[in-house]
Amino acid sequence: MSPLPPPVSARLAAVQSPIIPIVMDLYRRHPGTVSLGQGVVGYGPPPAVAERIARFGDSPAHHLYQPDEGIPELRAAIGEKVAAENGIDPRDREIMVTAGANMGFLNALIAITDPGDEVILPRPYFFNHEMAIRMAGAVPRIVACRPDHQLDRRAIAAAVGPRTRAVVTNSPNNPSGATYPEADLRAVNGLCAERGLYHLHDEAYEYFVHDGATHFSPGAIPGSSPHTIELWSLSKAYGFASWRVGYMVFPAGLMETLLKVQDTNIICAPAISQHAALACLEAGFDWCRPRIESFAPNRELLLDALDGLGARVEVPPANGAFYVFVRVRPDRDRELDDMAVVRELIVEHGVAAVPGSAFGVEEGCSLRLSYAVADRDAMALGARRLVDGLRAITGRTER
Amino acid sequence: MSPLPPPVSARLAAVQSPIIPIVMDLYRRHPGTVSLGQGVVGYGPPPAVAERIARFGDSPAHHLYQPDEGIPELRAAIGEKVAAENGIDPRDREIMVTAGANMGFLNALIAITDPGDEVILPRPYFFNHEMAIRMAGAVPRIVACRPDHQLDRRAIAAAVGPRTRAVVTNSPNNPSGATYPEADLRAVNGLCAERGLYHLHDEAYEYFVHDGATHFSPGAIPGSSPHTIELWSLSKAYGFASWRVGYMVFPAGLMETLLKVQDTNIICAPAISQHAALACLEAGFDWCRPRIESFAPNRELLLDALDGLGARVEVPPANGAFYVFVRVRPDRDRELDDMAVVRELIVEHGVAAVPGSAFGVEEGCSLRLSYAVADRDAMALGARRLVDGLRAITGRTER
Repeated sequence: MSPLPPPVSARLAAVQSPIIPIVMDLYRRHPGTVSLGQGVVGYGPPPAVAERIARFGDSPAHHLYQPDEGIPELRAAIGEKVAAENGIDPRDREIMVTAGANMGFLNALIAITDPGDEVILPRPYFFNHEMAIRMAGAVPRIVACRPDHQLDRRAIAAAVGPRTRAVVTNSPNNPSGATYPEADLRAVNGLCAERGLYHLHDEAYEYFVHDGATHFSPGAIPGSSPHTIELWSLSKAYGFASWRVGYMVFPAGLMETLLKVQDTNIICAPAISQHAALACLEAGFDWCRPRIESFAPNRELLLDALDGLGARVEVPPANGAFYVFVRVRPDRDRELDDMAVVRELIVEHGVAAVPGSAFGVEEGCSLRLSYAVADRDAMALGARRLVDGLRAITGRTER
Repeated sequence: MSPLPPPVSARLAAVQSPIIPIVMDLYRRHPGTVSLGQGVVGYGPPPAVAERIARFGDSPAHHLYQPDEGIPELRAAIGEKVAAENGIDPRDREIMVTAGANMGFLNALIAITDPGDEVILPRPYFFNHEMAIRMAGAVPRIVACRPDHQLDRRAIAAAVGPRTRAVVTNSPNNPSGATYPEADLRAVNGLCAERGLYHLHDEAYEYFVHDGATHFSPGAIPGSSPHTIELWSLSKAYGFASWRVGYMVFPAGLMETLLKVQDTNIICAPAISQHAALACLEAGFDWCRPRIESFAPNRELLLDALDGLGARVEVPPANGAFYVFVRVRPDRDRELDDMAVVRELIVEHGVAAVPGSAFGVEEGCSLRLSYAVADRDAMALGARRLVDGLRAITGRTER
């Protein structure tokens, strides 16, 4: 008998352990801490969900496997939604319901890359995007965003090589809170068309735009249908995180391949969640809007607080999602480790944030701050503690 | 602009399109056909499921992301179940709830193989197992079972090479209906321990054993904990297919790696389905038993009907799952294509089966016949039509 267990795969060994559970663990061990670390809203789904699921199981067929691509009623509702709201022409495209946008992203990578292929990923990135690329056996080709967290179009174009298969974009962006302008998304989509690449675009935060920013879907670009894969999630806007429903819109020619992947991964998204998702889409953006707008005062509060920190923090524009991604600047004679800063913020100051290294930013000290805090007083308290904490940590003398 | 869409991955191009949807399509286009093709029971889940989900959402926290590994109450219930029913010592093992056993299988392969690694897979195989190996970028090393559909231990040992990472077994088996004896599973598990491989064992049909056959879990073998990964599903026994809940029990040392995979794939199994799954496990095997036993007369009926076909069909022992996997023997001057036979059975004789090529059996003509037919009269009709059809197709003159 071998005394040693068999090894894990090298591709997974190369993936960092998720940092959020470490932060959450620290957070739970310090009761009373205000979390500016969450990636989820505090409200639950529309009330119609409860009515809908009360009827689930009326038909015995509800319990059988459903079509891999999703139940027809939900796919039809999604088709209407993306045509009306995202300006996507349904011709030559298909829709698949997935158990969250993460699954759509992973399924797509398995469908379009072979081991050793490269996928261009702007940094800062959503960590699960980088993990999915590695899990698929592909190689993330990381391209830094500009200091304002916008896409560096020239650097992306320069990163395309013979093994490149796709360019990933995510707008509104997690973690940066940046919303990419239409011109940049058109440029990336055009680059992909020209170089024979897929444009893999994550729009999970589409409804979360602030200060007059607008959301643009690359699928609205004429000629984008052969190479554009777009991902959505109901988790954020509909308070639907635990239900695991997302969807993808993609070239019709990929349907056969994506069905193979879906069948092997989950067969179909859970039917009860798909029925509940129908109730969400029927409630629609009108239901989400006031809830999303209720975060605007939180955002102002956080930005004002950060403003008071002066040169201690650099705060690039963040008019999307519910995040601000800041660079913390210590006195010139100190180095700040982001995880040490997060630990000190939680332990000493009672406020939690997520370190930038979770999103690929290893240099300097960046923090992702979420303002999706349900309670306004908690948000105010968290912002105050953050300011006090960063003041103490950066060690600058008061002006 | 490139006129051609970017290509799909070579690994997916190498995966055959699922055959079951093709059979289902033919079936639907011929109303009145009796299906012996299904891979699912006709009954729904225990009534307690409806009561449980009526309370789901009482706490706003129900809608938030749940722990990646599963909700604590469900993991505790699974732990008690596998200890009591499967004889699995929990020490040095962990439990994760997945959205079906397929997902557990795919996640495990991504966690333990790198592209180009080999995984030994006995044939006939469950098609999603072969697909998952290819999707992970690994190479299925197919090893034929013996003519009686039992494991060929010597051939499996001979197939182990320097790139082998795991041996897959599935008992009770889909598609063959074979139940592997304890001695064979011990031998495979011991081979894996000796050669530093994982033993990846799918027990989705554990409760479906007939004629005094017994189910054995390799996790019950002392010393199996470092290298044994076992997969279960609630889909079959609990009539829970659309809810997407399964679970895996695996070496504790794999937890960190499998959490990375789970987080990137689905984050957590849908919470409402996990709550419903608790109600299933509380109902337990006692609830499943009479339902599973209700298929015994169907099985007798089918076996008797096949018996009447004499030399036209070879029927290896099938005392597990709800399948019989038969070889159809034509007159010596004819060749039978299994898909053509299935088409003729549906179109001309009103009875559906799944061709053996779906399970990797390309030689000759094999058919998977399911006896999980809810209605006894339909089962009898299907068996009669099958006999008439195979009599006509094999073209033997009556003795």
